[in-house]
Amino acid sequence: MTTEAVTSEPGQRPIGVAVLGHGTVGAEVVRIIRDDATDLEARIGAPLELRGVAVRTVRDDRGIPQDLLTTDAEDLITRDDVDIVVEVIGGIELPRKLVRAALDSGKSVVTANKALLAEYTGELAEAAEAKRVDLYFEAAVAGAIPVIRPLTQSLAGDKVNRVLGIVNGTTNYILSAMDETGADYAETLAEAVRLGYAEADPTADVEGFDAASKAAILASIAFHTRVTAGDVYREGISKITAADLTTARALNCTVKLLAICERITTDGRDRVSARVYPALVPREHPLAAVNGAFNAVVVEAEASGRLMFYGQGAGGSPTASAVMGDLVMAARNRVHGGRGPRESRYADLEIAPMSDIVTRYYVNLQVADRAGVLSAVAAEFAKRDVSIAAVRQEGAGEGARLVVLTHCATDKALSDTVAALDQLESVIAVTSVLRLEGSAE
Amino acid sequence: MTTEAVTSEPGQRPIGVAVLGHGTVGAEVVRIIRDDATDLEARIGAPLELRGVAVRTVRDDRGIPQDLLTTDAEDLITRDDVDIVVEVIGGIELPRKLVRAALDSGKSVVTANKALLAEYTGELAEAAEAKRVDLYFEAAVAGAIPVIRPLTQSLAGDKVNRVLGIVNGTTNYILSAMDETGADYAETLAEAVRLGYAEADPTADVEGFDAASKAAILASIAFHTRVTAGDVYREGISKITAADLTTARALNCTVKLLAICERITTDGRDRVSARVYPALVPREHPLAAVNGAFNAVVVEAEASGRLMFYGQGAGGSPTASAVMGDLVMAARNRVHGGRGPRESRYADLEIAPMSDIVTRYYVNLQVADRAGVLSAVAAEFAKRDVSIAAVRQEGAGEGARLVVLTHCATDKALSDTVAALDQLESVIAVTSVLRLEGSAE
Repeated sequence: MTTEAVTSEPGQRPIGVAVLGHGTVGAEVVRIIRDDATDLEARIGAPLELRGVAVRTVRDDRGIPQDLLTTDAEDLITRDDVDIVVEVIGGIELPRKLVRAALDSGKSVVTANKALLAEYTGELAEAAEAKRVDLYFEAAVAGAIPVIRPLTQSLAGDKVNRVLGIVNGTTNYILSAMDETGADYAETLAEAVRLGYAEADPTADVEGFDAASKAAILASIAFHTRVTAGDVYREGISKITAADLTTARALNCTVKLLAICERITTDGRDRVSARVYPALVPREHPLAAVNGAFNAVVVEAEASGRLMFYGQGAGGSPTASAVMGDLVMAARNRVHGGRGPRESRYADLEIAPMSDIVTRYYVNLQVADRAGVLSAVAAEFAKRDVSIAAVRQEGAGEGARLVVLTHCATDKALSDTVAALDQLESVIAVTSVLRLEGSAE
Repeated sequence: MTTEAVTSEPGQRPIGVAVLGHGTVGAEVVRIIRDDATDLEARIGAPLELRGVAVRTVRDDRGIPQDLLTTDAEDLITRDDVDIVVEVIGGIELPRKLVRAALDSGKSVVTANKALLAEYTGELAEAAEAKRVDLYFEAAVAGAIPVIRPLTQSLAGDKVNRVLGIVNGTTNYILSAMDETGADYAETLAEAVRLGYAEADPTADVEGFDAASKAAILASIAFHTRVTAGDVYREGISKITAADLTTARALNCTVKLLAICERITTDGRDRVSARVYPALVPREHPLAAVNGAFNAVVVEAEASGRLMFYGQGAGGSPTASAVMGDLVMAARNRVHGGRGPRESRYADLEIAPMSDIVTRYYVNLQVADRAGVLSAVAAEFAKRDVSIAAVRQEGAGEGARLVVLTHCATDKALSDTVAALDQLESVIAVTSVLRLEGSAE
């Protein structure tokens, strides 16, 4: 049995690998390819050979032989002895050009680049298809946590209705810390930057761009439809206040930045919604317990029910684990024939606009401290058929507040209501508005 | 692009499926194949056609055309127009014969049968290998929760050190209920049987046989080594008392039946341990929150860190979801070429005996209420180099008790200590002994 052998199948030529980028992830991938060569060979059925590592500048402090380093990525990826290209550069335009060129030359590609995929999956999947090679990207969503493969393979015979994820570690670290310490956003962000949990320019994370890329990838796969980052409704966490977390606690909730991908069925017609925003999440929901830099993705499918995948969503080592899994599978396909699942977009569902989405809302109002305010506020909700689940009156005088929690209604009805409240004479200010997700009505 | 089409690739012949068994899972698989034909065809690239369902007795109340039913399974699986056989009969000897015959005739096989696999993976994997067909069994462990595919594919480039799972819903339901209500084992089991969470003869579940089968499968895959059910150390939950759960609560723990698969490294030599027993689990461990009939599997790998997979581990519909995922992947392989990963046992690690395993212990003793007891008890631990982490003295007179929690030590040192304690004059009885898992030393 070939499976017993630690060596390769007889006469099996090595599989050549080119790695683009030698940052945290790239360096770890290179280390594993070199250190675990024997195990990898046994798993693949052929030795995995590193042909080169493309870097911006060749330095001698990288701990790998100088002759493996090159600044000419384009030359490296088209070499005849390269079978698989691993792209871990980051950015969009350069990796797009290189990944495209690699696929066009018949190389399989493994990438961890969510921004690239959320924009150009269509183009890249078609290039992979034309050359019948693999395009794998498990590492692009939720780091080491297997999410892409379970969705495309394990649930291939099921019907996914909803994907709900905490897919950005930076924002989850900040929101968890705000929840624990009671500190405000700016202060917590500064601490996160200091500790290395947030980048010096945290915009991509805190404004939800990173999560939106991942939502686009998850929605595309879950619903067999091409969804790009531009299709994803997006709000960041920079407006979340310590007061929001206090109110959340009073409602037995916490606040999480969620990536939500949903099948919306209206009048027998299926559409897809992909959106990212901070939301109240009930404490008893499995996602409420996902704290710090951890990620988790909940998948709700028709036959399987609710599944959850949990683990480290970022970091060089966890991301490298996901890249290596893809690399081994792509290499196995080269040795044994076959390919992984291709892009599936047969369903081609329309994207539902945010206004059609049905959620619950929490609205925090600073109000005049006088009789009749509640009645005036309640009337605005009633006018738009938005049913109120609970009202709390807090404070008095200038600090008088109303906290309103609604039942489910369309986002349009809810945002129209909020706009109208903002115009009411008795309402001084709408201080915050958050959606509530993960509760049973 | 073929991926755009809802129809099959041009000229693609249908993929024929035979289903063996029409119980809860089989009926749901048949329903999905018939109801979701269009979606399945788009995902596979060819129509999936049901050739027949093998049953013990042909009845007309099964809701499927009579001419699809047959009592001649052997004839059905060898038909030329059958490509894939789904085995959901249960039992061992009959499915072994049928699965073997199907593989020998060049059919790919999807099975949910953990008992079969835990015993005969070797034989069946070799038969699949000889004919170069797929043998898939995602449904055999933890129902709908993708565990096999993440381990064999997503973590194919990582090194797994530990798998820790709650993989039996019946025992988890019973232990969760005991924890919540304070009721004793016998009472809770009776209630579980009444509610349908336990079978009339619950032996396979409560004595850990079912979990041991799953542990064997998980260990085989995680460590690239053949592990059978007989290699798994096994204790059931029938001796767990209400008092154990009370003490667990006092120690900020709960009690879970765990399937543990571990890489044991001693003097630079790797061995494998696979074991099933009820253990104390600290409340802050992710598995402590997995309640009722839910399952969860924690995987600890070198690069990925700790991952958790959570969901419904049993039931017709979740199990059918896992079977359908395998069926679609096996069908895709027939259409597009290629095969899933084969049995990998290149590591061929030795099984470590239970006596070599290092864990923590909790020992509950009924003792004589007099001076010097603690000293005598502590001496027995010290003699065998077992370090005590905490001691609690409870009650007085005939109800006097000592609860001892140890640091890590080998199972042999711990069980020798327990045996010696049982002989001490001042110890009336060792009332219970449980291991503590999932704590940091």
